[in-house]
Amino acid sequence: MSDSRSPTTATLLLCCRDRKGLVAALAQLLYDQGANILDAQQHTDSLEEMFFQRIHFDLSELDIPRDQLEALLEIECGRYQMRWRISYSDRRKRVAIFVSKFEHCLYDLLLRHRLGELHCEIPLVISNHPDLESVAEKFEIPYHLYPITKQTKAEQEGKQIALLEEQEIDLLVLARYMQILSKRFTERFPERIINIHHSTLPAFVGARPYQQALDRGVKLVGATAHYATRDLDEGPIIAQDVVHCSHADTVRDLIRKGRDVERMVLAQAVRWHLEDRILVHGRRTVVFF
Amino acid sequence: MSDSRSPTTATLLLCCRDRKGLVAALAQLLYDQGANILDAQQHTDSLEEMFFQRIHFDLSELDIPRDQLEALLEIECGRYQMRWRISYSDRRKRVAIFVSKFEHCLYDLLLRHRLGELHCEIPLVISNHPDLESVAEKFEIPYHLYPITKQTKAEQEGKQIALLEEQEIDLLVLARYMQILSKRFTERFPERIINIHHSTLPAFVGARPYQQALDRGVKLVGATAHYATRDLDEGPIIAQDVVHCSHADTVRDLIRKGRDVERMVLAQAVRWHLEDRILVHGRRTVVFF
Amino acid sequence: MSDSRSPTTATLLLCCRDRKGLVAALAQLLYDQGANILDAQQHTDSLEEMFFQRIHFDLSELDIPRDQLEALLEIECGRYQMRWRISYSDRRKRVAIFVSKFEHCLYDLLLRHRLGELHCEIPLVISNHPDLESVAEKFEIPYHLYPITKQTKAEQEGKQIALLEEQEIDLLVLARYMQILSKRFTERFPERIINIHHSTLPAFVGARPYQQALDRGVKLVGATAHYATRDLDEGPIIAQDVVHCSHADTVRDLIRKGRDVERMVLAQAVRWHLEDRILVHGRRTVVFF
Amino acid sequence: MSDSRSPTTATLLLCCRDRKGLVAALAQLLYDQGANILDAQQHTDSLEEMFFQRIHFDLSELDIPRDQLEALLEIECGRYQMRWRISYSDRRKRVAIFVSKFEHCLYDLLLRHRLGELHCEIPLVISNHPDLESVAEKFEIPYHLYPITKQTKAEQEGKQIALLEEQEIDLLVLARYMQILSKRFTERFPERIINIHHSTLPAFVGARPYQQALDRGVKLVGATAHYATRDLDEGPIIAQDVVHCSHADTVRDLIRKGRDVERMVLAQAVRWHLEDRILVHGRRTVVFF
Repeated sequence: MSDSRSPTTATLLLCCRDRKGLVAALAQLLYDQGANILDAQQHTDSLEEMFFQRIHFDLSELDIPRDQLEALLEIECGRYQMRWRISYSDRRKRVAIFVSKFEHCLYDLLLRHRLGELHCEIPLVISNHPDLESVAEKFEIPYHLYPITKQTKAEQEGKQIALLEEQEIDLLVLARYMQILSKRFTERFPERIINIHHSTLPAFVGARPYQQALDRGVKLVGATAHYATRDLDEGPIIAQDVVHCSHADTVRDLIRKGRDVERMVLAQAVRWHLEDRILVHGRRTVVFF
Repeated sequence: MSDSRSPTTATLLLCCRDRKGLVAALAQLLYDQGANILDAQQHTDSLEEMFFQRIHFDLSELDIPRDQLEALLEIECGRYQMRWRISYSDRRKRVAIFVSKFEHCLYDLLLRHRLGELHCEIPLVISNHPDLESVAEKFEIPYHLYPITKQTKAEQEGKQIALLEEQEIDLLVLARYMQILSKRFTERFPERIINIHHSTLPAFVGARPYQQALDRGVKLVGATAHYATRDLDEGPIIAQDVVHCSHADTVRDLIRKGRDVERMVLAQAVRWHLEDRILVHGRRTVVFF
Repeated sequence: MSDSRSPTTATLLLCCRDRKGLVAALAQLLYDQGANILDAQQHTDSLEEMFFQRIHFDLSELDIPRDQLEALLEIECGRYQMRWRISYSDRRKRVAIFVSKFEHCLYDLLLRHRLGELHCEIPLVISNHPDLESVAEKFEIPYHLYPITKQTKAEQEGKQIALLEEQEIDLLVLARYMQILSKRFTERFPERIINIHHSTLPAFVGARPYQQALDRGVKLVGATAHYATRDLDEGPIIAQDVVHCSHADTVRDLIRKGRDVERMVLAQAVRWHLEDRILVHGRRTVVFF
Repeated sequence: MSDSRSPTTATLLLCCRDRKGLVAALAQLLYDQGANILDAQQHTDSLEEMFFQRIHFDLSELDIPRDQLEALLEIECGRYQMRWRISYSDRRKRVAIFVSKFEHCLYDLLLRHRLGELHCEIPLVISNHPDLESVAEKFEIPYHLYPITKQTKAEQEGKQIALLEEQEIDLLVLARYMQILSKRFTERFPERIINIHHSTLPAFVGARPYQQALDRGVKLVGATAHYATRDLDEGPIIAQDVVHCSHADTVRDLIRKGRDVERMVLAQAVRWHLEDRILVHGRRTVVFF
């Protein structure tokens, strides 16, 4: 994790069809420009023959400017038809948090941000309800209200997108945002929207999932964080966890336990994204933690 | 947990519609006969207005014979339309383990039995395949083979039931038994058959669940132990647990992790049943642990 | 868990030397006065021959005033030399939170309180440093600053005690309060001060425990919540938990993981205390959860 | 995990003082000889400036014989004063299991081996007691008995070492072996002896740790697997885990829970060692999982 005393570093994420020599090629390119690799993780999916890599390296002795490094990467990665992405520790990602009426995930993210756990800027909170404005205010973050009805949805989403682009937002976190994003919206920000939803075994769909879980007598409740895609709750899974429950738990207890696991799992997914630990391939993620 | 140095004890499980005075009535009845309550747990489901209780008591100073105690319980419980069940620590439950080809749950149960963790007798293993006979032999337990085809299923089940009744079996444990029991079978042993099955979030049905879980990129695999009812895998849940997994896990790794969680969860459910900790109400269990 | 729609209830905690008839006696007493037992848990420690019980009951049809009920309990419990304590759901406990410079536990408790997870009032925060005043302000809770030096310690503690008594505080929560309480202080509030401290395997004493844990290569960091006694960090344990860590974790990561487990464990211990689930016997607790 | 259908692979473990170009140099060397890297993980300890790497690669298109590859590695690693170690998937490690009277870890390892979870050969079990001979026999593994008294210890250890060397044993697993190995013994097999011991928070030394844990009212019991060094129970930690416990647990329950966590943690540590995932540096391990 980067902090003020740390040297400037970069993180490179790579993905392509597997072939020999990929690790050597990238390592050599970085070495030749004076980069020092701090951490590197590589995974080959032998069934799909796909190659995934994360390289975290020190920039302090880099011999060339960043744009030239990127130009070299573009050439090298082009050779292997590699998808690649680079980010720099001195360029914090900009995060927008979307909320509705539940405050636990919002509070948790804002507190972790304040404690230095999330290496990002949070320039705005977006909501379809006025309820949580005072929470954002406590942390001095502007709260943008977009009430949404069936009639106004397309228009309001348009305004939200305009704001997000104007503010150069890198990541959208749906912190219990109770509105389904349109296809237009999710496709505008691919692999850049993280959602959290409750999970039970077996899974319950529809309203009041905790009541259903109680009726069925489940012994676990959990949460799943995933990238939002146009298939609601079906995007690539980033993180999951559960807590135990029992017959003695009321619906209120399940909701409380659900809150705890939701905020832990969401925070973990957001942190991994901010630290460039996640690669998406099809319906799956590779998370180098 | 009972052992040879322990005094003889009894465990009473009770369930009825809630009303005032139930705890007092039962406690008084036991006290009047010289029983000393060692552990008592009581739960009231306030939504359904149901009362559940487990009373574990010492018999060493009981003033009357057991049959007279049971007669008194019958009268008292009848007054409240209470379902009740009593068991005695000096009368070990008799368990039949059903298996097919997977050995991990069988081994685990036999080893735990040997280590004194499961207070029961295991007079027989029943299988539809010959594969695990040598495992049963290692622990000197008779292995009864009933190969099953579509044509012979009814007949073979009939023989199994006859054997189970002849052997006075109290509990059937389906330790990865890959045959669906007929309705006739499950209804013959209500709340006396424990099954284990894998669980993932989301859940996958059909063949090769771990391959499906891998394709979907799940980050947890789990297991659920439940009483078998005629609705396959839908009976009252007794215990559940999960283990974390990642992109680095192959199908073989998921299967290995699945085995670990299956055997832990199954053993826990069996132990709770043997210690008379489980009450079933509708689709749910109350587990006093 | 109680809420505004719930009927008024009471919780009775009992502890005495074990003997026959205790469960019956108490259940009968409550029944005779019109109380309906909602939940009851009883534990007998067979080695020490001690009896522990928690009875949660509905007061809505109680035939007598509370003071008469308490008078009857005093008589009955006196007969068995029983320690007992009763609390009522409509009389919220009053909690003082003690902090120094770390904010994560304070935030967590205040947020949980706001979400209705902690059934109590929090009329004040006490600190030896000014740093967290703004956090208390966000939640509109008075912040009382008592800077402490070796010379002023006795005097400042005296003022703190006076304030706590004036405010009729029931529970003191040391939410990372970095001052050792004097013997006079801890003995004034027996079983009413909850402390949280980090735990590792093996344990490290002295400064910078996470650096020591890192140097030793531990794979777990944890936290322990306990009642404060005059033996620092040696009081009866209420709750414990751990999180996994690895070689890839820096000291900052361990501190972050430590914060997560500290706040979860502390919140759990405080909730259990507020719900009257904890009985202390010697160096141990019985927690009916 | 390797299986019969897998191609032959090799795993290279590397450790040296950090400097630029290490990743590139190794990757290039392997690429030049036709090796295809399947998985690579690299860690830099920025405080100690140490470099650690695990490279798992496919040998099926290697252009040169293994001994030539190793000669090249020797030259290249020599250049960086690098410690290195290579192993091949078609050369299974040979494991000796040491036991005394407790059978749970022995059974667990033998069962996992049988299920294909542990990629090794287990040619022998060594014990200082005759008790577990029948367990080894069940799995058809020779059982070597070396009763040890204070007087015979040096002599018997000498015989054990001779047997281990004659049998070309790669790894010794102390599966609850209740004898302290001499300094001569542990130094003969550095980083090749894995031990398991119970862990509690706080830790208890001396006899009857579970009774002590009970007296102290701990809420967790755990286990630690580590490499054995001459400082008993102080070697580099490989894996740790815990299970929750409560006032309701008797010493027998704690022992049962301890067994479960011991066998899980030991099996994990052994598997990691067999898969060449562990590097030792001073008192710590780097585990690439």
